[in-house]
Amino acid sequence: MKEISQAVIRRMPRYYRYLGELIDSGVERISSSDLSARMNVTASQIRQDLNNFGGFGQQGYGYNVKNLFEEIGKILGLNEKHNIIIVGAGNLGQALANYIEFEKFGFLITALFDINPDLKQQRVRGIPVYMSEELDAFAQKNRVDIAALTIPKSKADTIANHLVDLGIPAIWNFANVDLELSDKNVMVENVHLSDSLMQLSYNIVKNKKEMQTGRSNV
Amino acid sequence: MKEISQAVIRRMPRYYRYLGELIDSGVERISSSDLSARMNVTASQIRQDLNNFGGFGQQGYGYNVKNLFEEIGKILGLNEKHNIIIVGAGNLGQALANYIEFEKFGFLITALFDINPDLKQQRVRGIPVYMSEELDAFAQKNRVDIAALTIPKSKADTIANHLVDLGIPAIWNFANVDLELSDKNVMVENVHLSDSLMQLSYNIVKNKKEMQTGRSNV
Repeated sequence: MKEISQAVIRRMPRYYRYLGELIDSGVERISSSDLSARMNVTASQIRQDLNNFGGFGQQGYGYNVKNLFEEIGKILGLNEKHNIIIVGAGNLGQALANYIEFEKFGFLITALFDINPDLKQQRVRGIPVYMSEELDAFAQKNRVDIAALTIPKSKADTIANHLVDLGIPAIWNFANVDLELSDKNVMVENVHLSDSLMQLSYNIVKNKKEMQTGRSNV
Repeated sequence: MKEISQAVIRRMPRYYRYLGELIDSGVERISSSDLSARMNVTASQIRQDLNNFGGFGQQGYGYNVKNLFEEIGKILGLNEKHNIIIVGAGNLGQALANYIEFEKFGFLITALFDINPDLKQQRVRGIPVYMSEELDAFAQKNRVDIAALTIPKSKADTIANHLVDLGIPAIWNFANVDLELSDKNVMVENVHLSDSLMQLSYNIVKNKKEMQTGRSNV
């Protein structure tokens, strides 16, 4: 399989999102230049990105929106169902469990796990919360494709490696640390909220300086 | 001010995080090659990234950890306080309000806003929840540096533009849509959870295929 850069992959969900919106508004066909204007990327970038997967347009005819949407869905693995467990049923874990959008894309949250006895036998949007000691048995009985890790960073490495030992092939990591895993085949996707906030803060400060030096139109 | 690519900026919080951990473990000085081994990026990448800001190491002496940590903090604007309001006090909004780590970096959540009357006069970790109609008065009386947008995507553009009209200079967008704002000087940082999950799913499917074709060591 040809190696495609993660920068390209990172853009694919955005294409998928925009194509979904086009379908919702009844658009059947779109040129790469129209798509480019909507998405605020160059038409050549779009063609290059899609060419990584064989390309889907015919010169002069543009893209068939529904077809392209489905093909990108397949590329992203959205034609398969993915079972997710959430490890850490605190505020963030419960927020994820409550987020129904994920199901639309084939991501099904099947259970939450926590150490807090107050959460025992609770449910979040009908999804059961189990105690941590029930995790091993659950993972042996049920297919788990992704574990979302919504726990403090101090425990993240230990628990993540335990999930790896249980054979869980992918971790969606919300702990504010880069996991060090024993098995390099396990896929990790990080959501580092503090990093994201710092990037915003950099841009705020930079923008303020530019306004002071008169580069802005304000 | 020299334009620095967002790819470089995206890596800076990670340097900051690693340097913070080094300080916590009592390390005072580190070579770019040691830092590179820990962070799993090349030493030349580290030097290049930091050279964007003038460079902070002396050849052969490595970096002074505390000094570099503070300098990167300044670059990221963490020497200033940032007041955040959360617009949308549902599960995700409350999860953000409960997250105390942000305060450590100077991000202070000052209020939540929602349309749900059940939340009227509630507090989340002591932070007041106000009704949406109180937003304008609040923003006029209090400095707001960042609005976190944790609302459904159908309302995101309208509400975001209202926040822009109120003079709020930055939006931390959790709605699953790219905002179309009337003022291009407003900074936007997106946290698209579905996109992140799709990227993970792409890598899972790719990994599975590679294992089947025997490229993996499993």
